[in-house]
Amino acid sequence: MRYLKKMDKRPIGIFDSGLGGLTVLKEVKKLLPNESIIYLGDTARVPYGTRSKVAIVKFSFQDANFLIKKNVKCIVIACNTASALAGDEIKRKIGLPVFEVINPAAKRAIKLSKHGEIGVVGTWATIKSNAYKKAVLAQGKQIEVFQQACPLFVPLIEEGEIHGELIRALIHGYLRFIKSRRVETLILGCTHYPIIEMEIKREMGKNVALVNPGKEVAKELKRFLLEKGITSPKKVQRFDRYYVTDLTDRFVKVAEMFLGEKLSGSLRRISLE
Amino acid sequence: MRYLKKMDKRPIGIFDSGLGGLTVLKEVKKLLPNESIIYLGDTARVPYGTRSKVAIVKFSFQDANFLIKKNVKCIVIACNTASALAGDEIKRKIGLPVFEVINPAAKRAIKLSKHGEIGVVGTWATIKSNAYKKAVLAQGKQIEVFQQACPLFVPLIEEGEIHGELIRALIHGYLRFIKSRRVETLILGCTHYPIIEMEIKREMGKNVALVNPGKEVAKELKRFLLEKGITSPKKVQRFDRYYVTDLTDRFVKVAEMFLGEKLSGSLRRISLE
Repeated sequence: MRYLKKMDKRPIGIFDSGLGGLTVLKEVKKLLPNESIIYLGDTARVPYGTRSKVAIVKFSFQDANFLIKKNVKCIVIACNTASALAGDEIKRKIGLPVFEVINPAAKRAIKLSKHGEIGVVGTWATIKSNAYKKAVLAQGKQIEVFQQACPLFVPLIEEGEIHGELIRALIHGYLRFIKSRRVETLILGCTHYPIIEMEIKREMGKNVALVNPGKEVAKELKRFLLEKGITSPKKVQRFDRYYVTDLTDRFVKVAEMFLGEKLSGSLRRISLE
Repeated sequence: MRYLKKMDKRPIGIFDSGLGGLTVLKEVKKLLPNESIIYLGDTARVPYGTRSKVAIVKFSFQDANFLIKKNVKCIVIACNTASALAGDEIKRKIGLPVFEVINPAAKRAIKLSKHGEIGVVGTWATIKSNAYKKAVLAQGKQIEVFQQACPLFVPLIEEGEIHGELIRALIHGYLRFIKSRRVETLILGCTHYPIIEMEIKREMGKNVALVNPGKEVAKELKRFLLEKGITSPKKVQRFDRYYVTDLTDRFVKVAEMFLGEKLSGSLRRISLE
């Protein structure tokens, strides 16, 4: 196969509905510091989480095809909604290794849940797809999964409302049901949610383990690249490229909140239509 | 000119970034009960209010061109963001009468403000464009305009959070500055805001007049059709058609909230790309 060669300096492609996927890029960079990354954020059509399956599948294929043209060695679907609704189809139809965030996070949650009961929070589309529930059951485990859509977390986080009364009131309301089920583990099923991880932890209590799918897919990606021997050679200087479908004044501010550091690399606005 | 004929049974075209424009359609139907309407909601790319001018202008022209192909007699831009950023260009370049919501609302606000001081609330893009401020100053009036972006109103309203503590806390926070300026009039510069009009009124007090741009553009449209003699003949049965670029399960619920009544007419998903 094309990717079975020793060392591979081609970049890793990561796509997301917007900028939230930078929380996944951050985890990939942490574990794979020599890899160059091409990031695509479909900021002209964000959010995916309130759209139909038809729209999400169409947009996700456009995203993946853009990265393929940029000659990436593999693709990471950072967006939970795109992973849930288009992940399987993209894996089947695209001739490159594809990583999505659902399965690695589900595996991790099962491992952490000794007695069962896993909670999942996400967008409308992710929760309605039952993707996390199916991924857990596919492991043959008799574990109950309790899900809750939290549609207002994304806009609040994007507006910087990540501390204080407003976000706490929302967290309290949304998590009431899952908390009452005494889950052991809670999957943060949206790229944005790690930003409010501490506030969610405060609500759920310290006995509930939180699973960040970005961290789990980064681990899986690292294992894969090492196993296949297709990591990037150390002597190649890493260089990150960011592509977005819309660019506003607020881009840098919002991007750096998700990235947790200063943006470096190149940035370009492109069209997918 | 093509539209200068006695009576004209062609429909009125209304477009919006999503479903919020149904609050404008509602006002048009109230004043012009014999007119058929074609409504286009770009629900695959909603919201426009957080996007760049480049994106908003491009999307708005695609919306307007779709309506032209449907043989409408005139176009109403229901979306405040599209009106603010693309209204002038569309008026200039499109060979049909075009109505936007900014100027009619600005005129009404001036009329209601005896001593000056007008407040405007809207999306990021609308407020940053200064469209309402410019429209007031273009009338040659020495009136101070105080603006406030309220980016979280739209997602909260779309999630049905239109009463209760959460929306009240947001309203209180966002309107603090404008309230402190003792404005006489407040323009509700986004199609969604009439849904929370009573909550906004409660915060601002009964001495502040609220202006709903949907009502004002409906009045202007009615005046225009009567003046030109191109209203629809009464004996023609009215029929409304709704087109959306994405269709989710929640469509009917959200649409009927904005419309304030049951949906009737035809509904189709279309693509603008």
